[in-house]
Amino acid sequence: MLVNYKSEDTICAIATGSAVAAIAVIRVSGKDAIALVSSIFSKPLLDKPSHTVHFGVIRNEQGQPLDEVLVTVFQDGKSFTGEPAVEIACHASPYIKASLLNLLVSKGCRMADPGEFTMRAFFNGKMDLSQAEAIADLIASDSAKSHALAMNQMRGGYSNEILDLKQKLMDFASLIELELDFSEEDVEFASREELWQLLALLKQKLRGLIASFSIGSAIKNGVQTVIAGRPNAGKSTLLNVLLNEERAIVSDIAGTTRDTIEAELVVDGVVFRLIDTAGIREAEDEIERIGVSKTMHEVQKSTVLIYVYDAQALRREEVEMDLESLANGPSKIIVLANKMDITGNAVANLSEKWNNTPVIPTTAKTGEGISELKEQLKSFVQDGMGESDTIVVNARHLNIFSETLKDVEKIEEGLQQQIPGDLLAMDIRSAIRNLSAITGEISTDDLLGNIFANFCIGK
Amino acid sequence: MLVNYKSEDTICAIATGSAVAAIAVIRVSGKDAIALVSSIFSKPLLDKPSHTVHFGVIRNEQGQPLDEVLVTVFQDGKSFTGEPAVEIACHASPYIKASLLNLLVSKGCRMADPGEFTMRAFFNGKMDLSQAEAIADLIASDSAKSHALAMNQMRGGYSNEILDLKQKLMDFASLIELELDFSEEDVEFASREELWQLLALLKQKLRGLIASFSIGSAIKNGVQTVIAGRPNAGKSTLLNVLLNEERAIVSDIAGTTRDTIEAELVVDGVVFRLIDTAGIREAEDEIERIGVSKTMHEVQKSTVLIYVYDAQALRREEVEMDLESLANGPSKIIVLANKMDITGNAVANLSEKWNNTPVIPTTAKTGEGISELKEQLKSFVQDGMGESDTIVVNARHLNIFSETLKDVEKIEEGLQQQIPGDLLAMDIRSAIRNLSAITGEISTDDLLGNIFANFCIGK
Repeated sequence: MLVNYKSEDTICAIATGSAVAAIAVIRVSGKDAIALVSSIFSKPLLDKPSHTVHFGVIRNEQGQPLDEVLVTVFQDGKSFTGEPAVEIACHASPYIKASLLNLLVSKGCRMADPGEFTMRAFFNGKMDLSQAEAIADLIASDSAKSHALAMNQMRGGYSNEILDLKQKLMDFASLIELELDFSEEDVEFASREELWQLLALLKQKLRGLIASFSIGSAIKNGVQTVIAGRPNAGKSTLLNVLLNEERAIVSDIAGTTRDTIEAELVVDGVVFRLIDTAGIREAEDEIERIGVSKTMHEVQKSTVLIYVYDAQALRREEVEMDLESLANGPSKIIVLANKMDITGNAVANLSEKWNNTPVIPTTAKTGEGISELKEQLKSFVQDGMGESDTIVVNARHLNIFSETLKDVEKIEEGLQQQIPGDLLAMDIRSAIRNLSAITGEISTDDLLGNIFANFCIGK
Repeated sequence: MLVNYKSEDTICAIATGSAVAAIAVIRVSGKDAIALVSSIFSKPLLDKPSHTVHFGVIRNEQGQPLDEVLVTVFQDGKSFTGEPAVEIACHASPYIKASLLNLLVSKGCRMADPGEFTMRAFFNGKMDLSQAEAIADLIASDSAKSHALAMNQMRGGYSNEILDLKQKLMDFASLIELELDFSEEDVEFASREELWQLLALLKQKLRGLIASFSIGSAIKNGVQTVIAGRPNAGKSTLLNVLLNEERAIVSDIAGTTRDTIEAELVVDGVVFRLIDTAGIREAEDEIERIGVSKTMHEVQKSTVLIYVYDAQALRREEVEMDLESLANGPSKIIVLANKMDITGNAVANLSEKWNNTPVIPTTAKTGEGISELKEQLKSFVQDGMGESDTIVVNARHLNIFSETLKDVEKIEEGLQQQIPGDLLAMDIRSAIRNLSAITGEISTDDLLGNIFANFCIGK
């Protein structure tokens, strides 16, 4: 740990939010936590074994009972933060919560900043920085996949892989620096051949991680999915059919931004945020033009485009024209030839594929073809994730991996140009420094402040 | 306990509400609670001592880690409910909470009804009914006084006093019934003199409790306080001055009904719900008449009326006319002679008192007289509470005490008319039965369903 952090003060916060509920948990952590709570509690707590729970009364400064509570004692080194800590489970009355916090503050506590408990856990070596970041992601997770990614990262994730690669780089750096001491003898302790191999491995790994970010970010934040097509293609029917079958778990969580997002659909544990758009066609007046231009903008921002057309009404050239104008934004395009139930000129007016994208025959009204559509959404995630289960979901990490990749390429270049060992070692050290920032071995106060400020209070 | 309750099923619920927060607590209670949580937790829990906390991983049915949690074990008879119980503190992600509840249900738990944990505590003899009711009041408490009343009741309150009086009545009933066995000998085991004394004591006590309800209810729900007066008397200025000094603790709790309530003011630990009204005067048109009639309606419903008038503009007769039309609703009237700063015809146009109500000279603009106003509000509560600290806040209790008072009066009447011992004993038994309903010794399923349905989920 480069930062030497010893908390001098004891912090407190409500960890269970502001909801009206049966119970609330107030967390207290810091060197005086146990003594401090003991002083307002009906039983002495200092000598209690760690991880024990005690029922009793908390009294205010006038000696009046404030609440009957359960108090859990965590002795030094054994709590989440690694400090002495107490959790008070009280009745979740607004008055009790406010009074209890006031009482703790009057006894010498300080109200905790957002994320401060986790920051202390990090400083006390209970977890590395990427694990700490994963806790915030875990709390925000709203689908099986976003939860699994956060859980994987919290439980180690790529920290271990990175640690291993970093260690190998450090070995090389040391050997190369050792060569410098014997520079007159022209020895070569560090095998250049092995270094090439390691750099190749690193490049492969880093590129994989960088590539995984687009899918990781989509899983974490939900996949922006636009449903587009000409008026009357059956877009709204499709949306309804999709939603009747399965509603996203997050659909009634307060605070989720909806704006133009019509609804959320969970497929294979991933949230797809479905955006229904105004029909695209030649705009006939100004207002319609604005609607269409907004649609095009939505499509450009989206990750997945579901393009629906009326297979009975549209000519192939029209479909291809639409697709060409829409295709340059999204990572994945799914084409639905809709209204296949209406016979008449019953031939689907498109070949089976468009630019390697299969065209799915659907009848939104009856649900025909919907399972194939879902398979396509599912395969989008699976293909994106590839073999690996280490996915980058964090923009800070993406940035670090990109920087490290540049370092690795510079080292390769240096090797090729046979630059002096000291310069080579410098480049290797730069890559090591970058990788260390992932786990927080090297970090700045600014960076840490930034990371932990995004946490909930009480975590 | 008359009801013999043995829960066969194990219940679970989130006890910390739905807020986005750092941690959530899920309660599990019932005979299989510990075994059930043990089956999804990374450590065996059945043999753990009560009141111990265990860190570990909960895995879903596919064996994937769902969350790292703290699990608290409460062995049979030692939990809040009196049953074996477990509390799981997990990360408060919407996905984790929902998945964990689903997992518990799939293992055999049932989702708890509102108040079901407290109902089990009542059935298992952990508390009497009035104490259980007090828990709901405690959770809802939003001021020092409403909190103190709920806390007093939860910790015994009048249960003990009632128990004592009830015991004495039971002694009399037994003695009178004993006389019946010796009816031919005309003995008198039960001293009629002592019974008279006991009845007098009971009447005094019951009347005190019944009278306390109006203040108790006001404290529990907030005191409805109307500010009324003619246009331009300074009502709004007064409201602003009152609120600038002190805002109610509940002011930003979601869900509080406001309707016409403008703001809340805490004086001496009691919430006064201030209602600003349209000015009263001779209505000139239909719309104004509606406004004035609404004001009169608000005044009639209110507990406290603060009447403000412009001391420079109003004649004494006008003030008295206003007060007479307003006075028949509220329990307390406070009269403010406002705008005392403007000299000119600077004599306050009212005697110092109106019907024993002191008239307070104020200048709302400068805050002059505001502390006297607050003193008046404070004394309203203090006078209402009297010497006693046992205050009835619960309408069910009020009803029971009123019924018991009728019983007592009937016993007195019977004594006076020297009715036969068996009829006297019957009346005494009726009083005893009524008093028993307070603590729930005698209760019906309907009643209990009614009481516990008003609780939070998870309590």
